[in-house]
Amino acid sequence: MARIISGTDISREIRAGIAEGVAALGEEGIKPTLAAVLVGSDPASEVYVRNKAQACQRVGMGSRTLNLPEDIEVDELFGAIDGLNADPQIHGILVQLPLPRHLPYKQVLNRVAPHKDVDGFHPLNAGLSFVGDPEGFVPATPAGIMKILEWEKVPTHGKHAVIVGRSLIVSKPLASLLMAPGPNATVTLTHKYTVDLASHTRMADILIVAVGKPGLITADMVKPGVVVIDAGTTRVVDPEGKPRYRIAGDVDFEGVSEVAAAITPVPGGVGPMTITMLLSNTLEAARRTSGATSSTLPEALVGSGKRGRRSSS
Amino acid sequence: MARIISGTDISREIRAGIAEGVAALGEEGIKPTLAAVLVGSDPASEVYVRNKAQACQRVGMGSRTLNLPEDIEVDELFGAIDGLNADPQIHGILVQLPLPRHLPYKQVLNRVAPHKDVDGFHPLNAGLSFVGDPEGFVPATPAGIMKILEWEKVPTHGKHAVIVGRSLIVSKPLASLLMAPGPNATVTLTHKYTVDLASHTRMADILIVAVGKPGLITADMVKPGVVVIDAGTTRVVDPEGKPRYRIAGDVDFEGVSEVAAAITPVPGGVGPMTITMLLSNTLEAARRTSGATSSTLPEALVGSGKRGRRSSS
Repeated sequence: MARIISGTDISREIRAGIAEGVAALGEEGIKPTLAAVLVGSDPASEVYVRNKAQACQRVGMGSRTLNLPEDIEVDELFGAIDGLNADPQIHGILVQLPLPRHLPYKQVLNRVAPHKDVDGFHPLNAGLSFVGDPEGFVPATPAGIMKILEWEKVPTHGKHAVIVGRSLIVSKPLASLLMAPGPNATVTLTHKYTVDLASHTRMADILIVAVGKPGLITADMVKPGVVVIDAGTTRVVDPEGKPRYRIAGDVDFEGVSEVAAAITPVPGGVGPMTITMLLSNTLEAARRTSGATSSTLPEALVGSGKRGRRSSS
Repeated sequence: MARIISGTDISREIRAGIAEGVAALGEEGIKPTLAAVLVGSDPASEVYVRNKAQACQRVGMGSRTLNLPEDIEVDELFGAIDGLNADPQIHGILVQLPLPRHLPYKQVLNRVAPHKDVDGFHPLNAGLSFVGDPEGFVPATPAGIMKILEWEKVPTHGKHAVIVGRSLIVSKPLASLLMAPGPNATVTLTHKYTVDLASHTRMADILIVAVGKPGLITADMVKPGVVVIDAGTTRVVDPEGKPRYRIAGDVDFEGVSEVAAAITPVPGGVGPMTITMLLSNTLEAARRTSGATSSTLPEALVGSGKRGRRSSS
């Protein structure tokens, strides 16, 4: 049976290190603060934003939520983002997706000042990560997946990592990170047009799935000993349940865990790591506003996956 | 025997279209002009810069070369680039690599204004290409490879493209382009740490090699019917030859062409396409300074690989 990788446990340790970093900055009079922009009242988005705000507070960070009306004009939204960009009390800004359809989400994401773009969605940050420049903020989910692999001492050097999905916020940046100097993985990226998906997934030493199709990956699609990272998050309604929905991953957990060496569950795997790396990016953004150098930070805070040994924090 | 794909022939047709575009802009009083910054006197770099300047002149573009001394201080170099950035007569700027070792090449490349960065090396352009935003300039070599595939009607949708090498200026952007919506290829990226390289290259429907190791890919490493794109460029000295060096690719052309369906030669394959796409990017940069819209341009000028049918130009 596969070892179950608990993103919740890893997150607890890393967040303890983040809390230390927040406290250290506090002595310089800086309170790292994350602002969330929430347009409309999508219930799932409201939950996500609330969870992020709570996570901030638990590590001593400030949080602010801007609730904006569903029918806001794009110029008003730009104005709100500009205000956060200019506010020295705000170090990180996230725009909760999805946005209402009338808003051009690319332009909205591009409006966030790159040095406060802790989601790493601005093209400049995408480009900096792509070229391996540590100045770029790496999106939280791929950063969290890299952190899981490091923390669990999963070898990547020369290993074949197969990614299912090609999203701009998870799969593509993850492919870029895994193939880069350091991790040195051979990377295959597959997607909905891939012919004979199983012929690819069966080659994987490390299989990362980020599609949003519960049950997509079954036991017959993986090779024995594979490490499986399930980044799928689909809300499945369960009218009898309490709460009335649950979050499902993309992997048939029961079946695959009989074949794999290690596997992340959903929930409790990639999800908590995503929020943890968002906190880490926000702390880093705040740190850059002070005179402190990177080496003064606990190792657990490094988001780019370069210094991956388990830290003492 | 494999069909030989002539980048020279494709380039001739595309450059005819570029010349039309240049002439059209000329009627608006705009002369698309490329500036090359050449630091020191590396003979190979001098040849490359001269070739690019000649290519500009042949399509009616202006070209300017800034010859700067080997021992230039970084601030002086920044000043020279700033001058080109501010010069309305200059539409595209390239900094010929490699730079002397005392110069921080990342910072130098980042100094080029993104809207004149026709090499596509600025992180903002890397990020825009990465997220599929057509505003970003795609580096000329991967753009040229995509153009070859389109021009030759090589299907990519659902095909398995295997890339050998992971350079930031060829392989990584190419991987990003091939996996994107439109081309829809399944992509594997391999490199020097890949275990059993042949086991990957043998899976390829399309094999692209950009390493710089002559003879790396041999006939036993490819499957029958593969399309092989050789982006290797190694200067091999031949004391008896005239000239005394030749450019060698990464593929054993004779052996592989007995197995492959199609193959690009070196020279005469990817090389001319690289210069062609540099011209295309420069024309596009100049076009953006005028009021013309993209749809007025000949189809052959589109550098991002989105409108790939053979044009009438």
